[in-house]
Amino acid sequence: MEFLIRDAVKEDMKSVLNLIKELALFEKEPNEVVVNEEQLINDGFNTQPKFKCFVAEAKSEVIGMALIYPRYSTWKGPAIHLEDLIVNEKYRGRGIGFSLFSRFIKYSNDLKVKRVQWVVLEWNKSAIEFYKKNGAQVLDDWRVAIMNENAIKKFLKNEGI
Amino acid sequence: MEFLIRDAVKEDMKSVLNLIKELALFEKEPNEVVVNEEQLINDGFNTQPKFKCFVAEAKSEVIGMALIYPRYSTWKGPAIHLEDLIVNEKYRGRGIGFSLFSRFIKYSNDLKVKRVQWVVLEWNKSAIEFYKKNGAQVLDDWRVAIMNENAIKKFLKNEGI
Repeated sequence: MEFLIRDAVKEDMKSVLNLIKELALFEKEPNEVVVNEEQLINDGFNTQPKFKCFVAEAKSEVIGMALIYPRYSTWKGPAIHLEDLIVNEKYRGRGIGFSLFSRFIKYSNDLKVKRVQWVVLEWNKSAIEFYKKNGAQVLDDWRVAIMNENAIKKFLKNEGI
Repeated sequence: MEFLIRDAVKEDMKSVLNLIKELALFEKEPNEVVVNEEQLINDGFNTQPKFKCFVAEAKSEVIGMALIYPRYSTWKGPAIHLEDLIVNEKYRGRGIGFSLFSRFIKYSNDLKVKRVQWVVLEWNKSAIEFYKKNGAQVLDDWRVAIMNENAIKKFLKNEGI
């Protein structure tokens, strides 16, 4: 099957949102997606975009995406984070994910960053295998900590700030 | 002991770098820090800063820092990441870390983000306890994946990209 990887445009955000929702379902959190198409367009395509997105296209349809943005390492300087790498379930196993991943690495190298990073679910063994095979380190001793909107508000209220 | 939390200025980057190196030593990776003072100044204080930094000051000395930058959640939209929260060893246990953390949460809330996040070492039980007590979730099932400069170059070479 032929496909191409290209920069996303505004008109892709509807399909990109569908892919985001597909991944949330896979991760067993379908109700956690609160962004909508309009917000993705505003956030990704204004004068100071908050992310960059690549899409995989086949037969004029968006069947995969990679969404990235800059981070900053106090050890290495500028870095790039891969927030999501998603291929529609029907199109897996054809190298589309690898092509999106390659584009992300190539783009990051062109920007001369010294680190790229992302997170992976501990039980997603095939993804971990894929990343390790391609030279990534999967760090066993770090944990992600998160506060959502409710936790933020509650903290500030408790502290009287 | 009296201290204050304020926005960092260029002149603080020397002290901030010392704190970064102190943390790297604690994390058993003292040789991994390749950024220098000049790069921190360039990256943090140009027209499009790559990070924002708060410092804790006592007796005209910088004794702690929190370094943050924006991220983007495909579920929640704009988010803020806490890259480092460091207090000089001599000044721990006096609420300085908590004050820096509070400033980070307050700043994030003022920007109306729906998520703040950071990472913590799995064996740093006191830090995990601190974060949980203040309303954070520490996620057990996510792992951080990283490719450094060598891995990036090797990947692209292998793939002939």
